[in-house]
Amino acid sequence: MNILVLQGSSRDHGNTEELTNLALVGIPHTSIRLREKHIRPILDQRHEPGGFVDVEDEYDAVIEAVLAHDFLLFATPIYWYGMSGHMKNFVDRWSQSLRDKRYAFKEALGQKQAYVIATGGDQPHIKGLPLILQFQYIFEFVGMPFAGYIIGEGNKPGDILQDQRALSAAKLLNERLKAPLA
Amino acid sequence: MNILVLQGSSRDHGNTEELTNLALVGIPHTSIRLREKHIRPILDQRHEPGGFVDVEDEYDAVIEAVLAHDFLLFATPIYWYGMSGHMKNFVDRWSQSLRDKRYAFKEALGQKQAYVIATGGDQPHIKGLPLILQFQYIFEFVGMPFAGYIIGEGNKPGDILQDQRALSAAKLLNERLKAPLA
Amino acid sequence: MNILVLQGSSRDHGNTEELTNLALVGIPHTSIRLREKHIRPILDQRHEPGGFVDVEDEYDAVIEAVLAHDFLLFATPIYWYGMSGHMKNFVDRWSQSLRDKRYAFKEALGQKQAYVIATGGDQPHIKGLPLILQFQYIFEFVGMPFAGYIIGEGNKPGDILQDQRALSAAKLLNERLKAPLA
Amino acid sequence: MNILVLQGSSRDHGNTEELTNLALVGIPHTSIRLREKHIRPILDQRHEPGGFVDVEDEYDAVIEAVLAHDFLLFATPIYWYGMSGHMKNFVDRWSQSLRDKRYAFKEALGQKQAYVIATGGDQPHIKGLPLILQFQYIFEFVGMPFAGYIIGEGNKPGDILQDQRALSAAKLLNERLKAPLA
Repeated sequence: MNILVLQGSSRDHGNTEELTNLALVGIPHTSIRLREKHIRPILDQRHEPGGFVDVEDEYDAVIEAVLAHDFLLFATPIYWYGMSGHMKNFVDRWSQSLRDKRYAFKEALGQKQAYVIATGGDQPHIKGLPLILQFQYIFEFVGMPFAGYIIGEGNKPGDILQDQRALSAAKLLNERLKAPLA
Repeated sequence: MNILVLQGSSRDHGNTEELTNLALVGIPHTSIRLREKHIRPILDQRHEPGGFVDVEDEYDAVIEAVLAHDFLLFATPIYWYGMSGHMKNFVDRWSQSLRDKRYAFKEALGQKQAYVIATGGDQPHIKGLPLILQFQYIFEFVGMPFAGYIIGEGNKPGDILQDQRALSAAKLLNERLKAPLA
Repeated sequence: MNILVLQGSSRDHGNTEELTNLALVGIPHTSIRLREKHIRPILDQRHEPGGFVDVEDEYDAVIEAVLAHDFLLFATPIYWYGMSGHMKNFVDRWSQSLRDKRYAFKEALGQKQAYVIATGGDQPHIKGLPLILQFQYIFEFVGMPFAGYIIGEGNKPGDILQDQRALSAAKLLNERLKAPLA
Repeated sequence: MNILVLQGSSRDHGNTEELTNLALVGIPHTSIRLREKHIRPILDQRHEPGGFVDVEDEYDAVIEAVLAHDFLLFATPIYWYGMSGHMKNFVDRWSQSLRDKRYAFKEALGQKQAYVIATGGDQPHIKGLPLILQFQYIFEFVGMPFAGYIIGEGNKPGDILQDQRALSAAKLLNERLKAPLA
């Protein structure tokens, strides 16, 4: 099983990144920081006669990484009670990939597993739940099993190390991801 | 009462725009299409010693329009069970405005009212509910009363005209917004 | 199409009952006030060797009414942000009916439609949404299409008559239910 | 800190009870099985001239136990994506206690902490989230801090012992509850 982290954070060394790293200690994986990729917001052309026009940016390269991995870890800070705009822009573009004849995008996602790590500072275990429900609907739409999620609490860098519950969940995820390698 | 539409749609003449227009027939208002504004995703510098660095884009101009109006209508298609990336990028940047000494951003929002119009194609009356809860948390955080919302169902342009429930709610909103003008 | 109201309110002439009556003006229907039926809470015997033991109460009579109708209208006040205990006790017992050899309970429900009317006094359009999501999961589990819902706001008897939005939705439901009779 | 478990399960030795016991190993506490108490569903008399009429059942005795403890652990199986009818009937009656002149019910609850343990068999980590949001609204209404929750997965008795995530969370709760005793 090969693992791709889609990192939605907008800064280096934030709590989301730190929690993700703890979950993946000792496990080979690829990580893409979405903020470092040039990804344009969707231009909805689903109902245009010619369909979607090709966009010149780095979106397709990220999608090719998605297609090349089995386990997709969506790591995002909880910004304003949702995924970051970086990640939302990326996901919005899936509407384009669904219609892209080069890929059987939906079928491919259906063979993968999705996991979510989300951290936030304002009661994330309550106010992050609509985001988890949103991810569930997203994954359900593309037929990708939702393998689980971890919500972490933190605001300032390093806060996450005080969230015993999140650390313990990250450790269990680490063991689970290592198991198939054994 | 002056009204600002923050239009999150990524295309012209979509269902969200059409429903919004119906709600505002005969009512003076300003509308900003977020897709036509150059707004960069947030770069989280809340915990940097120097705080946020100024960003050269059109975000501040939109915020100044926000501050100049009393009734903010957040109009967004439901993309992947959330607000559009265009709108999310815009809202994410509020973290910067909260710390911008030129504005008393939170206090100002607390004097306004927020309303949401959201349309989607995949069971929006169910799968759009996490988005409504997210907006509630957003507005609660800044102390801005959530005056109501309309969820509309539609996929292809024009579909919204079949959603009697949404049309009727738009008509009631229209009457309510006209009332103070009388 | 014949219609059964499962009325979850605990008092006469409350807002839920009033809104339900408005939705059904001029439409023949059966209404069961769950509070007037003797329905015991579930005793979970799913994992007992002998399964569920018959219960001597009026639950089966209500289920037979359910099975005899096509359109089930679940009408409940929002008590403590959920359906009333009267209604919850009733729904909990479905676990027993699912295993009752006299009925093909799930298959039968899959042929019906479900509708929800819920009224409450504390921001029901926001704080009633988890209840709508719960109903969605319930109906999905038994394969019964969720035909729609109306949330009304009211506290004291008669308040509902001020909720233009709910009244307008009730009127649309009334037209929709009358249509097949034409 | 003294601890009261309000046990909403309808059977002995179910997963909810087992997970609760694991969380409380070695910690003195009182446990009330709501199914063993005679508690009538609410009769809503909030708007009757004479208010609520006294009810002859065991509800008041449970409320007196509630008032005598500091940490309230609401333990419920997830039945039909909500708390059990036993627990819902009990909570519905709080409307009566809020108006009971013998108690300053709301003020008293505001001094306590609430915790939720909920277990279910059908994707409880997703489909149990509306229940968590409901508990949040309940506790917020009475001003009682929501100290946390554990969702466990299990269907048949004993299943919960396979849910490493829930077991680990129960262990952390155990340590947290023991800490003030040290």
